[in-house]
Amino acid sequence: MAAQAAAALERLRQAAPLVHNITNVVVANVTANALLAAGASPAMVQAAEEVADFAPRAAALVVNIGTLSVPQLRAMRLAVPAARAAGRPWVLDPVAAGATPFRLAAAREMAALRPDVLRGNASEILALAGEDGAASRGVDSAHPTAAAHAAAARLARSTGATVAVTGAVDHVTNGERAVAVANGHPLLTRVTGMGCTATALIGAFLGAGLPPMEAATAGLALLGVAAERAAAEARGPGSFQVALLDALHGLRAADLAGAARLAPVPAGG
Amino acid sequence: MAAQAAAALERLRQAAPLVHNITNVVVANVTANALLAAGASPAMVQAAEEVADFAPRAAALVVNIGTLSVPQLRAMRLAVPAARAAGRPWVLDPVAAGATPFRLAAAREMAALRPDVLRGNASEILALAGEDGAASRGVDSAHPTAAAHAAAARLARSTGATVAVTGAVDHVTNGERAVAVANGHPLLTRVTGMGCTATALIGAFLGAGLPPMEAATAGLALLGVAAERAAAEARGPGSFQVALLDALHGLRAADLAGAARLAPVPAGG
Amino acid sequence: MAAQAAAALERLRQAAPLVHNITNVVVANVTANALLAAGASPAMVQAAEEVADFAPRAAALVVNIGTLSVPQLRAMRLAVPAARAAGRPWVLDPVAAGATPFRLAAAREMAALRPDVLRGNASEILALAGEDGAASRGVDSAHPTAAAHAAAARLARSTGATVAVTGAVDHVTNGERAVAVANGHPLLTRVTGMGCTATALIGAFLGAGLPPMEAATAGLALLGVAAERAAAEARGPGSFQVALLDALHGLRAADLAGAARLAPVPAGG
Repeated sequence: MAAQAAAALERLRQAAPLVHNITNVVVANVTANALLAAGASPAMVQAAEEVADFAPRAAALVVNIGTLSVPQLRAMRLAVPAARAAGRPWVLDPVAAGATPFRLAAAREMAALRPDVLRGNASEILALAGEDGAASRGVDSAHPTAAAHAAAARLARSTGATVAVTGAVDHVTNGERAVAVANGHPLLTRVTGMGCTATALIGAFLGAGLPPMEAATAGLALLGVAAERAAAEARGPGSFQVALLDALHGLRAADLAGAARLAPVPAGG
Repeated sequence: MAAQAAAALERLRQAAPLVHNITNVVVANVTANALLAAGASPAMVQAAEEVADFAPRAAALVVNIGTLSVPQLRAMRLAVPAARAAGRPWVLDPVAAGATPFRLAAAREMAALRPDVLRGNASEILALAGEDGAASRGVDSAHPTAAAHAAAARLARSTGATVAVTGAVDHVTNGERAVAVANGHPLLTRVTGMGCTATALIGAFLGAGLPPMEAATAGLALLGVAAERAAAEARGPGSFQVALLDALHGLRAADLAGAARLAPVPAGG
Repeated sequence: MAAQAAAALERLRQAAPLVHNITNVVVANVTANALLAAGASPAMVQAAEEVADFAPRAAALVVNIGTLSVPQLRAMRLAVPAARAAGRPWVLDPVAAGATPFRLAAAREMAALRPDVLRGNASEILALAGEDGAASRGVDSAHPTAAAHAAAARLARSTGATVAVTGAVDHVTNGERAVAVANGHPLLTRVTGMGCTATALIGAFLGAGLPPMEAATAGLALLGVAAERAAAEARGPGSFQVALLDALHGLRAADLAGAARLAPVPAGG
């Protein structure tokens, strides 16, 4: 499977896909730079007046609700159907989906628009699947990771999306099969926007023509391996961020083939 | 007093408080990363539709008017009462308060909502206190720093906030007593968002349960000491920013106890 | 001409001009830091309620449509006349002008408001000049750079602006004469916001009192020489960004005099 991720990286660099991002103000710069470093071409077009014109010009769309506003939600409602009508894949990042009713409603509305990939952390996936409450107090509650993986499988089946749950070990599932990505580093949790960066990289692989499972797996493996390299020379979260962009840029397909730790796991749910 | 700041840092790291920021687009990424590096957990939720739901979930609220808009002001008007009703402390950063009537009116409206801490530079504090005009042309005008410290004391008494005036030496006062923080480095003035970062760190200490004077003093000491460490290895403002995040992350309570230069000073005013 | 750019840098550092930016959320932080590093003072004031009050207080205005919205466009429509009425120079960055009808209309509306300088890449300049379609399929189409330079000369004559076309070699023209700036590095294309940074630096030179041709030339030479220095020690786009801010800060006028590669070229068109 690592060889497959390496081939995907070669394909990304040859395609240099234009990735349309409707994202939050905290990470806009970070994700644009990560896309550029990895070999894609980012565009951050988000006005309702133009997103439907622009989405078909890009190879993929990334929708991120991190600093959602009503005008931005209106733009998302126009961009997604325009991308889909043009045959463009898209990926959803339901940032902090469970934090407020406004955010949960928006995340669910977007999830119902059939994203190709949906990426979140365990609590976001549980919230989207409606399981931050009663269900998660059941058997799974002593095993929050297992609960999130099971919720991901159910969410994948109900939405048609490939669902990626990121954490110490990432879990990617389409509801039938699942892959674990065991790369990464704890410093990823001390820098803002690293989950959003994972989502954007998945968008780049989708834009390069990879199918959802392969795109999600390759995106997470690329970020995880780059993070491992960056952490090896970082002295804290500041130098880690810098080294991460250098690593995303410098990593060769062969490096990814050698370092990606991917394995099939039960789909759960 | 340095020992008190060190104890505050230990408390911050144990509490890892969730800090709700309604802030400007220039510094959103920088302040989120500074909060993460220091040991807090940032959230940048700013839609009017959700801030009142979210504010009580966080341990403290940071309000910053750096790129104020009417929709953002509407969100601030909802977030602050919601935070206060839930017993959450909050800190106000009246960025460039004197630059335009729109901004001054908003800063004064927010200051009247009883922030626990209010942090600005000398000209912002003078503007808020109504002393950028006639009053500051009086005796104090040859001593702009003294004028700002006097204005801070009066502002503290009229608003109930602890007021921090940052500059070459920072000054923190509750109107009755005052503390000078003599840490920092000139490179802090060559990087955008360092004042906003000071405010956000004060928010983190408030969120960890420190009283306003202690939170403000610890926040400014932490940033100042980290800046000194960063400057020692920086070659300019780019490498300084990187080293600053590393220092905020790596600094131990004992380091802060040894390096913080805090002293009681007359409250003025 | 390199001596002229060096003199301009000295003037910028003495003047430390306040530069008012109405810009996009992706690069707001980056351009503020570049302005600070170079010796200017940035302000990012963008609410329609205050831009007309603020613009006359600044030494120059930068208008950038990178993440244009209707509220931001409204602010631009107020800020530009206010700056002009106060005799302040301004520079326009028509980011991705040809990407959507909304963006092209806004870029053209702004270009008609007589910017002192207009900076874009070849495709943006061609789009603004109405030549991404039929005209560029003519003789020039095998020579896209030559086509863009010719379009720049015509745009300069129709708008009254000095037009800068940035690329491997930058081209600055007022429609009568032209200057080539042959500094820079390919890593500039792997970091987001570098074109916007060029525009902001041009704004700083305008704010320091330089005439448009000199301001545009000095701004591009400064960024190009700083990029060469940064690339010499960078290991990728992450460390390049850091070193670029250090270089913008550390570069002396004499360094610029020695390294700027400026030459008069035919104006074209």
